[in-house]
Amino acid sequence: MPNQPVPSLIEPFGVQFDLVEGAMRDSESRIARRASDMRGYYADDAALERLIAAEGDPVHYETFESPVPEQYGQVKFCISKLYPGLVGDECFMTKGHYHAVIQTGEVYLCLKGQGLMMMKTAEGRCSREPFAPGRLVYVPPYWAHRSVNTADEPLISLCLYPGDAGHNYGDIRTDGFPKRVFRRNGTIAVV
Amino acid sequence: MPNQPVPSLIEPFGVQFDLVEGAMRDSESRIARRASDMRGYYADDAALERLIAAEGDPVHYETFESPVPEQYGQVKFCISKLYPGLVGDECFMTKGHYHAVIQTGEVYLCLKGQGLMMMKTAEGRCSREPFAPGRLVYVPPYWAHRSVNTADEPLISLCLYPGDAGHNYGDIRTDGFPKRVFRRNGTIAVV
Repeated sequence: MPNQPVPSLIEPFGVQFDLVEGAMRDSESRIARRASDMRGYYADDAALERLIAAEGDPVHYETFESPVPEQYGQVKFCISKLYPGLVGDECFMTKGHYHAVIQTGEVYLCLKGQGLMMMKTAEGRCSREPFAPGRLVYVPPYWAHRSVNTADEPLISLCLYPGDAGHNYGDIRTDGFPKRVFRRNGTIAVV
Repeated sequence: MPNQPVPSLIEPFGVQFDLVEGAMRDSESRIARRASDMRGYYADDAALERLIAAEGDPVHYETFESPVPEQYGQVKFCISKLYPGLVGDECFMTKGHYHAVIQTGEVYLCLKGQGLMMMKTAEGRCSREPFAPGRLVYVPPYWAHRSVNTADEPLISLCLYPGDAGHNYGDIRTDGFPKRVFRRNGTIAVV
């Protein structure tokens, strides 16, 4: 087996979800990204600054985490909740990430909302998949991934990934993804 | 990183689930376990033989599989559907398994039905968690696990586990689990 620390022996547990509302009850920890954390990610920097100033730097997206150790062999899970809105005419999105262990994939089970998962590899491949309630998007190993909310309600997914995956923002801050998602005249445009 | 083959570079994909009915649409493969596959697992062998004879060896439980390679770094997922019924007065259950790579855990997200996840370690620890719609049961690394259906409808879960996990029936055929689950006079008894 791997040249890795062996996982801890922990006790089984259960967590109640509301699969209609997309909520994990009694989540022990929450990580919030505010609009100001997204500086440099959108096409229109000035529009983001106007949004930060006008709305008091609102929460852009948040994750509700599970108490699973970050170790090989464990299966981490969390709820990802991306709020709706536009920066200029670009749809709200997450920063996006590779996994630190790039050989690890991730499952996103969309519970609520509509959107797109934008994906790319470091070698320049590009793909996307729609999010809709009940739709599972499989992000294979090696693919960086970013969620985009194309609707008027939160986009909520249950995310599951190997415990040793980690996060790596890699070239995303500088290079972004090959395509951006805009809402123009009520229509979604992927450009 | 691990002394393991690196995972394949595959294309992202999506799968639609019905989270209310607990179904994976367009599943490419199905594995069925019939009553006759369960010989040796229940307390009352004769009652199982009567069930096989009377009902024509019905399907006991089945899994609907995803097209994810069985490799480190991938996240396998499937739907597990365990039918309701009794063998004598013992509730229908799965065989139960360890993972071949015992350092790997599993997530069960119950979508429909009621039941219990029975768990044990090879060193003699024992635990259980209830299944109910929307309840996620975390089976940590090292824990063998068996689903038991305590209600009158199918018990359906979405299961997710590391791609390198594999299955190992180990000591379960011979030793079973420390507790069995019965329905006696309309009440569930864990004995």
